[in-house]
Amino acid sequence: MKVLIVYAHPNPRSFNHAILEAFTKGLSDAGHNYEVIDLYAVKFNPCLSQDDVDLFTNEKIPDDIKRQQEKVSQTDGLAFIYPIWWTGPPAMLKGWIDRVFFMGFAYDFDEKTGQYTGLLKHQKGLFINTAGASEEAAEMVGLEVALKKINNEGILQFCGIKEVLQTIFHNVVMADDATLKGYLEDTYQLGRNF
Amino acid sequence: MKVLIVYAHPNPRSFNHAILEAFTKGLSDAGHNYEVIDLYAVKFNPCLSQDDVDLFTNEKIPDDIKRQQEKVSQTDGLAFIYPIWWTGPPAMLKGWIDRVFFMGFAYDFDEKTGQYTGLLKHQKGLFINTAGASEEAAEMVGLEVALKKINNEGILQFCGIKEVLQTIFHNVVMADDATLKGYLEDTYQLGRNF
Repeated sequence: MKVLIVYAHPNPRSFNHAILEAFTKGLSDAGHNYEVIDLYAVKFNPCLSQDDVDLFTNEKIPDDIKRQQEKVSQTDGLAFIYPIWWTGPPAMLKGWIDRVFFMGFAYDFDEKTGQYTGLLKHQKGLFINTAGASEEAAEMVGLEVALKKINNEGILQFCGIKEVLQTIFHNVVMADDATLKGYLEDTYQLGRNF
Repeated sequence: MKVLIVYAHPNPRSFNHAILEAFTKGLSDAGHNYEVIDLYAVKFNPCLSQDDVDLFTNEKIPDDIKRQQEKVSQTDGLAFIYPIWWTGPPAMLKGWIDRVFFMGFAYDFDEKTGQYTGLLKHQKGLFINTAGASEEAAEMVGLEVALKKINNEGILQFCGIKEVLQTIFHNVVMADDATLKGYLEDTYQLGRNF
């Protein structure tokens, strides 16, 4: 399988970057190909603008979005790696979805019937996330349930990808080395068994 | 009361802008003061960077964030107006939260006890959102429940604001004029009764 990894973390020495490395090693060991979009490294512009919308309305696609959509179209698997900030993705990652998954590419809408149709053909979608807070704190606000609804049903399944998984590694700020090492081993296996 | 309105929509002729106008008229008629931060108009940078984090770590605050934090501190009420894209806020709005509500300003964390403490003193928080999809589609994925958890419990109540309300106006793409007019009247009342 060819897997596109959309990655967002501002610090190249972060634990999220270690996760990216463990995941890609797992993918390689399983014989998968992959491509990484490191959104901070490429200085992706995450703000959907009125110019974007005007172009889309005239059935044109802004150049930088077109390049991203081509990468999406050329893969069979989609993986997102990012930290959970304020119970959601960093603006950088959210804006990638806002701009790249525009109507006509990731889904369509029939004005007559009011029906939405997913247009993505990927076999599998995966979210690998870190959370600074402990699992207890996250559960308290039902974070995990809410996030899974939003990411799985609200985004990738909505776009037609039936098999979507999400793994959240909690408490990464305070976790001891053994815990973090375990998280990386789990991540490697997510790649190995993708 | 003095109310800070954080507003994000790329199109100055959007229905969201009409909502902003109805809400501020309601606030004015009730004798409240307000200030609007129009994130697209001021070209706010929504990407929390490693430079930001390094400054915060050294107990310094990036200049553009400091100006936003001062606006937050000078008000008793906080209102957010934005469209729901992909079951969440536009990147522009998400990034305002990511950067402005940094640890030490909006909340604190005690490494010894693992406890979080909200630091915002506002009497009231409010979200006014639009959704393109019909209410039935939104309910299907439990969107409203998930969003309220995230916005209310996960953001503003987490930061210490006890009274938080969220109103979502559904189906704005296909709604008829009478429905949209009703939404604006509801919005005016939200301002009038803030």
